[in-house]
Amino acid sequence: MAGNSIGQIFRVTTFGESHGVALGCIVDGVPPGLWLCENDLQIDLNRRRPGMSPYTSSRRESDQIRILSGIFEGKTTGSSIGLLIENKDARPQDYQSIKDLFRPGHADYTYQKKYGIRDYRGGGRASARETAMRVAAGAIAKKYLFEHFSIEIQGYLSQIGTICCEFKEKECIEANPFFCPDPHKVEEIAELICALKERGDSIGAKITIMAKNLPVGLGEPVFDRLDADLAHALMSINAVKGLEVGEGFSFVNKLGSESRDEMTSSGFSTNYSGGILGGISSGQPLLVHLALKPTSSIAIPAKTINQQGETVEMTTSGRHDPCVGIRAVPIAESMLAIVLMDHLLRHRAQCGHF
Amino acid sequence: MAGNSIGQIFRVTTFGESHGVALGCIVDGVPPGLWLCENDLQIDLNRRRPGMSPYTSSRRESDQIRILSGIFEGKTTGSSIGLLIENKDARPQDYQSIKDLFRPGHADYTYQKKYGIRDYRGGGRASARETAMRVAAGAIAKKYLFEHFSIEIQGYLSQIGTICCEFKEKECIEANPFFCPDPHKVEEIAELICALKERGDSIGAKITIMAKNLPVGLGEPVFDRLDADLAHALMSINAVKGLEVGEGFSFVNKLGSESRDEMTSSGFSTNYSGGILGGISSGQPLLVHLALKPTSSIAIPAKTINQQGETVEMTTSGRHDPCVGIRAVPIAESMLAIVLMDHLLRHRAQCGHF
Amino acid sequence: MAGNSIGQIFRVTTFGESHGVALGCIVDGVPPGLWLCENDLQIDLNRRRPGMSPYTSSRRESDQIRILSGIFEGKTTGSSIGLLIENKDARPQDYQSIKDLFRPGHADYTYQKKYGIRDYRGGGRASARETAMRVAAGAIAKKYLFEHFSIEIQGYLSQIGTICCEFKEKECIEANPFFCPDPHKVEEIAELICALKERGDSIGAKITIMAKNLPVGLGEPVFDRLDADLAHALMSINAVKGLEVGEGFSFVNKLGSESRDEMTSSGFSTNYSGGILGGISSGQPLLVHLALKPTSSIAIPAKTINQQGETVEMTTSGRHDPCVGIRAVPIAESMLAIVLMDHLLRHRAQCGHF
Amino acid sequence: MAGNSIGQIFRVTTFGESHGVALGCIVDGVPPGLWLCENDLQIDLNRRRPGMSPYTSSRRESDQIRILSGIFEGKTTGSSIGLLIENKDARPQDYQSIKDLFRPGHADYTYQKKYGIRDYRGGGRASARETAMRVAAGAIAKKYLFEHFSIEIQGYLSQIGTICCEFKEKECIEANPFFCPDPHKVEEIAELICALKERGDSIGAKITIMAKNLPVGLGEPVFDRLDADLAHALMSINAVKGLEVGEGFSFVNKLGSESRDEMTSSGFSTNYSGGILGGISSGQPLLVHLALKPTSSIAIPAKTINQQGETVEMTTSGRHDPCVGIRAVPIAESMLAIVLMDHLLRHRAQCGHF
Repeated sequence: MAGNSIGQIFRVTTFGESHGVALGCIVDGVPPGLWLCENDLQIDLNRRRPGMSPYTSSRRESDQIRILSGIFEGKTTGSSIGLLIENKDARPQDYQSIKDLFRPGHADYTYQKKYGIRDYRGGGRASARETAMRVAAGAIAKKYLFEHFSIEIQGYLSQIGTICCEFKEKECIEANPFFCPDPHKVEEIAELICALKERGDSIGAKITIMAKNLPVGLGEPVFDRLDADLAHALMSINAVKGLEVGEGFSFVNKLGSESRDEMTSSGFSTNYSGGILGGISSGQPLLVHLALKPTSSIAIPAKTINQQGETVEMTTSGRHDPCVGIRAVPIAESMLAIVLMDHLLRHRAQCGHF
Repeated sequence: MAGNSIGQIFRVTTFGESHGVALGCIVDGVPPGLWLCENDLQIDLNRRRPGMSPYTSSRRESDQIRILSGIFEGKTTGSSIGLLIENKDARPQDYQSIKDLFRPGHADYTYQKKYGIRDYRGGGRASARETAMRVAAGAIAKKYLFEHFSIEIQGYLSQIGTICCEFKEKECIEANPFFCPDPHKVEEIAELICALKERGDSIGAKITIMAKNLPVGLGEPVFDRLDADLAHALMSINAVKGLEVGEGFSFVNKLGSESRDEMTSSGFSTNYSGGILGGISSGQPLLVHLALKPTSSIAIPAKTINQQGETVEMTTSGRHDPCVGIRAVPIAESMLAIVLMDHLLRHRAQCGHF
Repeated sequence: MAGNSIGQIFRVTTFGESHGVALGCIVDGVPPGLWLCENDLQIDLNRRRPGMSPYTSSRRESDQIRILSGIFEGKTTGSSIGLLIENKDARPQDYQSIKDLFRPGHADYTYQKKYGIRDYRGGGRASARETAMRVAAGAIAKKYLFEHFSIEIQGYLSQIGTICCEFKEKECIEANPFFCPDPHKVEEIAELICALKERGDSIGAKITIMAKNLPVGLGEPVFDRLDADLAHALMSINAVKGLEVGEGFSFVNKLGSESRDEMTSSGFSTNYSGGILGGISSGQPLLVHLALKPTSSIAIPAKTINQQGETVEMTTSGRHDPCVGIRAVPIAESMLAIVLMDHLLRHRAQCGHF
Repeated sequence: MAGNSIGQIFRVTTFGESHGVALGCIVDGVPPGLWLCENDLQIDLNRRRPGMSPYTSSRRESDQIRILSGIFEGKTTGSSIGLLIENKDARPQDYQSIKDLFRPGHADYTYQKKYGIRDYRGGGRASARETAMRVAAGAIAKKYLFEHFSIEIQGYLSQIGTICCEFKEKECIEANPFFCPDPHKVEEIAELICALKERGDSIGAKITIMAKNLPVGLGEPVFDRLDADLAHALMSINAVKGLEVGEGFSFVNKLGSESRDEMTSSGFSTNYSGGILGGISSGQPLLVHLALKPTSSIAIPAKTINQQGETVEMTTSGRHDPCVGIRAVPIAESMLAIVLMDHLLRHRAQCGHF
């Protein structure tokens, strides 16, 4: 449906460019009667927004969300909800010098060839700034899922470069600017990021998202399996290049006899499958890992071509994250929430439970 | 849309259970004027069908496809195309003994909880037998893509257990029953499979699919990126638990300076991104890797529960593949073809090229 | 979605040409647990099928339906249901003589221009034969609506030529071949049809469809109002050229003070609005009227052009209905059932009732 | 898709309540490269907006549109276009007195029953104020259709009460506040409206919309026929209760021999069918008539019930149109434009012309 919408019943449609007037979103299909205010959305928006620490982009956007419709006397009415964030710290002039160049590793080249025109200011629609609206919409889903089903969604940084972060303390995740769950790795990550900033380089990352207290039964055979829809939603996040459910690529050299999640009367014995069986949630914790490539917007020169097709060397200036994987944590949580919300409503439609 | 459809303009909808009457499919949105006959579909169906070698399931299905509509005097008319395969070697009685048990690692438990009823005969709709229709529909897409754009799609087995298979000889792939591209690994794989069959065990696999000669410009920002739609389509294949585009998880500990695909006037210097930039095809070869878990249908007993929730031990009998990853190769190719076809038409709709 | 599908959650996709191999359908999103057998569908199919009386087309099709999937031990499983009817009395040779002509009033010309190719045998996909599958799918919806909500759907012939038929006796409708609800008009209609057959001419008709016991709340603002979705579904039936909800065109010269359906504690006082307020069902009986044009397939010669654009005179031979409005009654009922079913499930998804 | 979206490829999603903060819209799938500015939209918005003459609602809204995204250096980029109108003359306090009452003939009752909550201020989402965004989105479609295909869309008032207005002078339509095409009827209509205002009553209307220079081939068999999709779009406009294509209900007592549009080498001889054959545009002028009921918001008291179900008598105050049919003209034009635009792109997708 023209690309800027996601979801069948809980349906999110977004607009907005990095250095344009505003970002916006329409969330349709929200169940009526949910208490909802702007602050419910702002909390997650603040987790994502830049300029919050020296370790991410220095662009200063307050990302102040406005709810323009669909709420009456504090509750959702069932009508479509309009959301708006005005861009405050746009600097289109920063991009004048690259308007004829295709930044390597970016969407500049593909947008130009696809559309014959492109908003070169900070990548326009291809910028990760677009994801603010995913977070806003996801916060609505998160609230409903938690209040009605006690479903908890949590993401964290599980690897950056060669530093692996195990899930040690849930509290730790929000207590550092990297969403790192292991307090002993925080310092190390800070040093890595600082070193990268100094060198003008960037690095990849792996993040993990989990959902707990899922009911059994979410997901629709055969194409709209829960894992398939999650893959769609999560791979649509900028820079995501890989995805695993449960054991993922570890299954490649595993035997069937050591990979099945056996069951007993007290429940599943293991959770290799990451909470999904046959494309349908099993009630076990949902577990997904994402690989994010390092941003190509770095201070180290690279070869590229200009609009005339000539080879040139360029450096990407602007205010960029040394590791886009970090801020991807709240974005991935939001996409997960949107998919779960949609499937909850889809399941209720056909099967009538809940 | 209720789960059994995929694609927006080139749209595939399927039905059919493993041990039911028949499998069927409607392919809608096929451009008119394409020469098409049953044999065009049969070729790929034969690559997928069981009973073709001692290394896969011994179920003997001819998988004879019938085209029931949408063709006139040898060409597509633009009307919806109905496809049908009757099940010939169904053996529902094989499953009588497990009708009250939830096979571990299978969809039995989740289907039962979701729908309150389940066709326990060979997994019913959750069986990989369902994928025959994906292959039939994909063959239509493949033909159009090749004839109108010279787009070539090729999949192969890239790893099984610890045996890695490099892409050495395209011809080799179809010359062995494993879709292995390295002639020196064929024997080793055969031995592994035989050993597994003897032990009644199974194993995971990694497969790779490629597309060449793609035009620049396929994919729609922001949710329907080409990689996002591919992830959806490919993760919807039974047993797929992981997916990578280009370098995938290797990006996690790569630097931005070593990950960008630089460009010069003679084209891209590298293809780390796997042919997709900003969610849109770059014109480079498309490269996707999939991880498949080992089938849980094995002869080694495991613990599970029955419908009453009691712990029992069971063995899965039936005619199963020791490695479902092998036959996934033509299936993954087909899903790739369906997505590319849909995005070609979507691009033509909005942008008018092609 | 490529045109051959209808519905969002209860979703019907069809294929098949008038003189092709078979007609088929996939019904997706059916709630699990509904008792369903082929006879449930056959009853309505028989009401629609030709050759049942001397007053409709003499084509003899048994329209024997087969259910190919989605049922297990007599009940729906929640999986997609495949349906099939093989064409038995196709006579493609009847159309050889008109393969280069565009029958006036038919889709021959528009299909040719749209697709550059057309199945000229009896109109191919544009034939009303296609509607058999609507009736089959609608019968599933009807059964669910009646069993779970006591919703009753009834259509009847309300006018043919200048003969108006009031809704006098429900029993009368099925007791004559015209779906005429007034026993005193049956003879008159029979004479009209016989006279038309003799002259080789045809006539228009008006039909009415009703639904009783609808819950309040079906329909979604703002584009998917219940009346809007009904209009879509009903105008998609061959030959329908007009539609009214409730008083319809009579409202044009009515005052507001005489058009409002006032309410008192004992309910609505009138039902001018035909059971829909603001696009949402009000709980009153749903009332829709349709105008059908006379078929253009008649024995009286008319001017047209051939594929070369030259003027020619032609007569449409073949086995045609003198009044296509008659057999439209079960078709319109089915489309109404499909829309209501879809909106029931959509409502349940968002609002959780039912 | 949750009701607030229309179109498959050219896709419009809206939000906003009558007395809320703002109205908004996202238009997705717009072809890149179209020159577009706010004034292109404002022209049609001004034709629709209230307070422009003494004959419509006295609510004073400037309906100033802002384009928030999707345009770069004056042209569309292919990205989603965000549109916004802030409400300026909202008077929620006007509705305090009716917050517990269900206005007869309005959506108050059905919204309350459907959602369990309702924004009672001016009907909230059910208000015709919502249609401003249809007009804004339609203006984009209109511009593209005219610039690329010379397609002209024109609506007019064809009947109000018993006053029939024939299409005499195109120029006349925009020269009077009633969109009346017959200069000799303007005075009479003005008098009728004044008399109604004085009595506090309202009246129905019939409007006609036309499109010229349509290519042959728009519309998709079988469910998404052009007339079916038009019916959906047009019946979704507030107060529309009837629709005819071409001769519409006149066909009911016409013979086939007098209803066929014959063709000769110089084209069609007549246009009874209103420009659509078999659901596909024939290249003849498209002709659709709509019946609109009189608004129920009148100063004459009527019986209704309150939230407790008790019978009460009430009068609807507020600033209402004596004939909502008048301002429906630009709205209907816009919906027609949206449907044509979507079908042009859909046709281009599958068939590749244009």
